[in-house]
Amino acid sequence: MTSTNSGKRERIVVIGGDAAGMSAAHQALRVAKARGREIEVVALERTGYTSYSACGIPYWIAGDVEEGEDLVARDPARHRAMGVDLRTGATATRVDLDQKRVTYRDADGEHELGYDQLVVATGARAIVPAWARGADGEVYAGVGPVKDLDDGEAWIDRFAARSGQHVVIAGGSYIGVEMAEAAVRRGHRVTVLTRSRVMSTLEPELSKRVADTMEAAGVEVVEDAEVQSLDVTGDGVIEKVTTVRGTTYSCDLLVLALGITPATDFLSGCGLLVGKSGGLQPDARGHLRDGVWAAGDCCETRHRLTGEWVYLPLGTHANKQGRAAGENAAGGSLAFGGVVGTAITRFAADQHYLEIARTGLSLAEAEAAGLDAEGLLTEGTTTSGYLPEAEPIAVHVVAERVTRRLLGAQIVGGHGAGKRIDAVAAALWGGMTVDDLAWMDLAYAPPFATAWEVVQVAARRLAERLTPLVEVRPSRLVAGAPRTSGPAERGSKP
Amino acid sequence: MTSTNSGKRERIVVIGGDAAGMSAAHQALRVAKARGREIEVVALERTGYTSYSACGIPYWIAGDVEEGEDLVARDPARHRAMGVDLRTGATATRVDLDQKRVTYRDADGEHELGYDQLVVATGARAIVPAWARGADGEVYAGVGPVKDLDDGEAWIDRFAARSGQHVVIAGGSYIGVEMAEAAVRRGHRVTVLTRSRVMSTLEPELSKRVADTMEAAGVEVVEDAEVQSLDVTGDGVIEKVTTVRGTTYSCDLLVLALGITPATDFLSGCGLLVGKSGGLQPDARGHLRDGVWAAGDCCETRHRLTGEWVYLPLGTHANKQGRAAGENAAGGSLAFGGVVGTAITRFAADQHYLEIARTGLSLAEAEAAGLDAEGLLTEGTTTSGYLPEAEPIAVHVVAERVTRRLLGAQIVGGHGAGKRIDAVAAALWGGMTVDDLAWMDLAYAPPFATAWEVVQVAARRLAERLTPLVEVRPSRLVAGAPRTSGPAERGSKP
Repeated sequence: MTSTNSGKRERIVVIGGDAAGMSAAHQALRVAKARGREIEVVALERTGYTSYSACGIPYWIAGDVEEGEDLVARDPARHRAMGVDLRTGATATRVDLDQKRVTYRDADGEHELGYDQLVVATGARAIVPAWARGADGEVYAGVGPVKDLDDGEAWIDRFAARSGQHVVIAGGSYIGVEMAEAAVRRGHRVTVLTRSRVMSTLEPELSKRVADTMEAAGVEVVEDAEVQSLDVTGDGVIEKVTTVRGTTYSCDLLVLALGITPATDFLSGCGLLVGKSGGLQPDARGHLRDGVWAAGDCCETRHRLTGEWVYLPLGTHANKQGRAAGENAAGGSLAFGGVVGTAITRFAADQHYLEIARTGLSLAEAEAAGLDAEGLLTEGTTTSGYLPEAEPIAVHVVAERVTRRLLGAQIVGGHGAGKRIDAVAAALWGGMTVDDLAWMDLAYAPPFATAWEVVQVAARRLAERLTPLVEVRPSRLVAGAPRTSGPAERGSKP
Repeated sequence: MTSTNSGKRERIVVIGGDAAGMSAAHQALRVAKARGREIEVVALERTGYTSYSACGIPYWIAGDVEEGEDLVARDPARHRAMGVDLRTGATATRVDLDQKRVTYRDADGEHELGYDQLVVATGARAIVPAWARGADGEVYAGVGPVKDLDDGEAWIDRFAARSGQHVVIAGGSYIGVEMAEAAVRRGHRVTVLTRSRVMSTLEPELSKRVADTMEAAGVEVVEDAEVQSLDVTGDGVIEKVTTVRGTTYSCDLLVLALGITPATDFLSGCGLLVGKSGGLQPDARGHLRDGVWAAGDCCETRHRLTGEWVYLPLGTHANKQGRAAGENAAGGSLAFGGVVGTAITRFAADQHYLEIARTGLSLAEAEAAGLDAEGLLTEGTTTSGYLPEAEPIAVHVVAERVTRRLLGAQIVGGHGAGKRIDAVAAALWGGMTVDDLAWMDLAYAPPFATAWEVVQVAARRLAERLTPLVEVRPSRLVAGAPRTSGPAERGSKP
């Protein structure tokens, strides 16, 4: 096949056919079309499928989604019909940045492909520890991660083999909690083994609520329990896991919910720098270096509150980053403004239901970032308390002490609790203060909130805590008070 | 009783014992206590009850709340136990601002009460047109508003008298929609007569969705149908209503859902200015003039987007304004930063369920305010489309063309649609752009949103519409681009 691009049309090569890659491919085509320019967009995808919702896999396994195909937003045929030269089963193996050339392998062998602009959107791989593999290097049959559609299919088959199996989940973060829901709803006995706490980036009080709800639904939650080894029969059937503390748990199936890592290995040696996580570090436009762009789960991103690089791979970021990278690769101008660390999930089994959301920094994260922060937990109800649908909700808010800048919030509660985080995320995006959050005009009606919305009560109480005695408060701080409502100066509080 | 306050302790008199008044009373006590000062807080309440949720009354009537008392957040005994000298059945009739004296009437006759600081929190009265009253000036038996607990009790009795009555609701705004829900859920035949459209501050397309859902639930919705007169038998039994267009509708019961008006009549002649609505116009601290404060439904408030005075009486504002006025009346300093026009409600009967929310300005309101605005409607789903719980959601976003400033949004949709408005309200509070809304970091997981959250798709599409051809875009606008992400400069769009 062709080496460097000798055709007349500019060629954009996208490596990766999921959210970021295909967003980039289509946005590049849109920009070119709007400018009346012809470009060629070639996309290389390792697997046979494109643009699927990895986040939806646990719900497919749980039985909420009929077919894996339902998780596919756009299949390869659709992408091709829309003008992308999509090549599936095509694994990029090497990039030559000087020669502007990608090497990839498919069923027919190895190929080289020249590019004018390259978009790296290779995503991430599930972390699979050495103890999960046999001597042949293969992962044991009853063990697997939950990353792609093949993983999902495998888990559906394993869960369907017989009910009442003992499913051990290694990892208590998002995927761990979601797979615990799926397994318990599928009628299995579930044990979650987690290195520190369940949902460990939550404040301890909120993490405990998640664990309590899971246990109420019959899930055994074991914290401080990192898996170290696996006992396997001669036939490769797993029997038990042992933690670093030496405790053993019987298990029929083992879910690897240990996180993901950027799929950037094939770039090693080509001169692109990666961060601590192994993720690429493109600028806000998705730019890495001349003619090279990156987006999605293979990248780190800037945290707007700390300015630090963080690895927070999420489909919603991948879509946005891909759109920006594609626009810019085609000569447009669009920036991805970074993240504030917003995330949401739920645990739902029978009547046990809990929404879990966070944004910004936890108190520990704020302190680790060198900020003088304070946090406070506030309890309330999701609707006016007199309505039958009212459910408990707990909100933890963090703010910087002297500047009163809002730093983060976490919410755990019943129906309608989770998406409340978006108001806080918006406030963080705009650099607002805890007083802004306490006093802004949020929606109230009895079926939706209490008259003092619980998120605002939480912010107000924290704001009151931050207020020093008026006598000791330097006047320049009063003068430099928040631009919006809230106390400019206050009386002493007990 | 005492005339001007001759006691040693400073006396704060609060007129009105609902959300704003009692928030003010308690906040004043808290501030004084924190400062080690003794003050006396006297609150005068016309009725026998305090601090009740007026917004909850339709749900009580619908059967979701057992007792009217359940709507009372704090009863008189509780307020007294907390240190407020609360006098119920006490109607303020006159205020002498020079003499700092309030005249009030109770069962024992007329009294005068001196004050050092006065907080006016008299709330609002339901609008009752002349045609709703007989020759004796009394409202007909089958007719009534939905403002206080007595109204609620009356509607529960009327609805319970027999099922299948024809309930006509005059007014298609929040209370009208909520009472339609209550009446249809109670087994009555319901007709809503509304002057313009149902939820007339919504964009026409969204208003139509509300009307369609109500009609699907069996409610007859008649727009452009202002009630002009009532036919009543010699016994005072109502029989039919006639609209200004001359159409008549039979009716057994008639709900007055025509809005409320500030209860400020008793202040006439005392020298306090009121706005167009009849509402007082305190500053952000709740201050009117020396020693006089006001809060709640008797006040207008500043709209943060236009700077204009608006009358948007809501419990959530009343609570905040009351807190600020009470704090300031007691010598503290706390500001209420105005409103952005956020509101929410729902219509729910059987399987017919719709959440309705708005914030900021509608396109018509923006244009009326002299802004060069553009709006766009976007459709999506409340959760990822492949989940069984996904419901339709429609989002209309408005932004200012040249500055790209976000001006407002409206949302109509299924479960979880309504409170999404809070993210937009937060963005409006912070003066953010439509690009900020499109690109900010909002929460995504399949049970909560699509990977491109529908509110952000709506903002992004509008942002793309606002973008002029790059060739004609003045460079100073590029330089003055939004401080956060979003296009600083873009290619031409078809």
